[in-house]
Amino acid sequence: MKTPITELFKIEHPIVSGGMVWCSGWRLASAVSAAGGLGLLGAGSMHPETLAEHIAKTRAALADTGRPFGVNVPLFYPEIERVIQLLIDERVPIVFTSGGNPALYTGRLKEAGITVAHVVASARFARKAEAAGVDAIVAEGFEAGGHNGREEITTMALIPQVRAATGLPLLAAGGIATGAGMLAAMTLGADGVQLGTRFALAAESSAHEAFKQLCVTLGEGDTMLALKKLSPVRLVKNEFYQRVAEAEARGASVEELRELLGAKRSKRGIFEGDLTEGELEIGQIASLIREVEPVAEIMQRLTTEFDAAVERVSRWKTESEKA
Amino acid sequence: MKTPITELFKIEHPIVSGGMVWCSGWRLASAVSAAGGLGLLGAGSMHPETLAEHIAKTRAALADTGRPFGVNVPLFYPEIERVIQLLIDERVPIVFTSGGNPALYTGRLKEAGITVAHVVASARFARKAEAAGVDAIVAEGFEAGGHNGREEITTMALIPQVRAATGLPLLAAGGIATGAGMLAAMTLGADGVQLGTRFALAAESSAHEAFKQLCVTLGEGDTMLALKKLSPVRLVKNEFYQRVAEAEARGASVEELRELLGAKRSKRGIFEGDLTEGELEIGQIASLIREVEPVAEIMQRLTTEFDAAVERVSRWKTESEKA
Repeated sequence: MKTPITELFKIEHPIVSGGMVWCSGWRLASAVSAAGGLGLLGAGSMHPETLAEHIAKTRAALADTGRPFGVNVPLFYPEIERVIQLLIDERVPIVFTSGGNPALYTGRLKEAGITVAHVVASARFARKAEAAGVDAIVAEGFEAGGHNGREEITTMALIPQVRAATGLPLLAAGGIATGAGMLAAMTLGADGVQLGTRFALAAESSAHEAFKQLCVTLGEGDTMLALKKLSPVRLVKNEFYQRVAEAEARGASVEELRELLGAKRSKRGIFEGDLTEGELEIGQIASLIREVEPVAEIMQRLTTEFDAAVERVSRWKTESEKA
Repeated sequence: MKTPITELFKIEHPIVSGGMVWCSGWRLASAVSAAGGLGLLGAGSMHPETLAEHIAKTRAALADTGRPFGVNVPLFYPEIERVIQLLIDERVPIVFTSGGNPALYTGRLKEAGITVAHVVASARFARKAEAAGVDAIVAEGFEAGGHNGREEITTMALIPQVRAATGLPLLAAGGIATGAGMLAAMTLGADGVQLGTRFALAAESSAHEAFKQLCVTLGEGDTMLALKKLSPVRLVKNEFYQRVAEAEARGASVEELRELLGAKRSKRGIFEGDLTEGELEIGQIASLIREVEPVAEIMQRLTTEFDAAVERVSRWKTESEKA
């Protein structure tokens, strides 16, 4: 299947695995790229030295295939300058930036021959990213896991508006975990999809097994956007979340919430498997995922489901033309 | 086009106009039904006498066509007993219930020969509605305008889960305003769509012209879910909303919020056009709608866009089979 996304990244399927903190190491990224998608490393939870190691291992795992991979970098990352220089020195082929001003680093990355995508949560920021010179846009809706936009625009409302705002290759993210979801997002105007939750719960994700097993038992409504006075983040409603929700309901200040959050809670929850006190970042669509599967099976299932959904839609066409 | 929804309601297009307070009077409902969709009257903002009058006028407007119409009834409505009896006495063909327990009235309505649909915001409530004996389900996502579910599940995440939970004819609602959105929702598993915002801003909607003109200039992010401690409702961020948001940020109590809300604010905003002090209920997708149009044009546009979207998706199929 060819779309502006498969053409831009030189991949077989228009499917990207998000660069998620504590989930997206070299095992996950290389498995997704090897299966014909685009795997991203999540630099947000790596020191530059660790990132360099994961880049080397991803390269080694993909050496026989010649397939590309990428790195996701949150622009508010404290060691951002060192990371940007590393990506340039390492000649990483593709970089996704998120959570900051794309005007800051896009030029330098592009000059180094890197293909750059930027993650946005509104059409307004998609236009800013295009003006900054990025090659592609990821538009991520309110239902997505982890850090999230302040305007709470859902994927259903967001994609058509970003599509109207820019002609750049466009990935939809948030609430997508199946081939039918993929087709729905592409019907709304996307050229491909970025899946976070689906791949965070893959066998090759570096998340703790206890975190994965909890997430595949979540019901609908078991995640909620929290900490809006700091930076909105979608979390599983565990004990830590409940304390946050109580504090927010009584109007807790930014300072109080910051103290409650403390440091390293996402590592504690996602990577170390502390299900009660950790910050458990996952998307609403987790409740549609009922088992931990290897990436190769997930990719196979996504493309089979996608083809079946296209087939179903095509039949509507025939009936409509008959009528 | 035939789907379980067009078959159940005996309509041409699987498109229903929501029964919205202060918008859905006989002009809007009869225009949608006359154009081949299903028009609903919004009983939530009518005294029983007014509702009887609107039912009579809708019937008169549709007399030549023999086309059906329906009434939406919020089950927490204070005069609910009188309204239910009226619907039975008037032999209204189709009733949509929302915001309450479907077990209460579904049996009585069905015994009177009425086709019943129930609006839910989760798969769990879809199963409850099916157990209560309803004929169809409306699943409405977080992005929808007006009153909304507590679990904040978006249309993208909600529809596949409700589809998996029930085999009943299923309408998707929330974030849908175009034919492409309609196809996306149907790709996710819906058999048709209920559009609120799109028809609230139609020429035939009984909303105040000032309200409509404001809504067609809204940007993305100009609505927000508010009053979650009372009953969550999506509102335009006007002066009244700002006061609510400030009160909520400092942890205002249920009592304080109730006093701030007072009475009749949705009438004041939507029907009387008080844009600063009114409760302005509209969905996120308003920012995709840039003009007030007559229903006949909206219906024509929806079906043309739907066919174009099906055509586009069918081409993906061909390319995928070529490859």
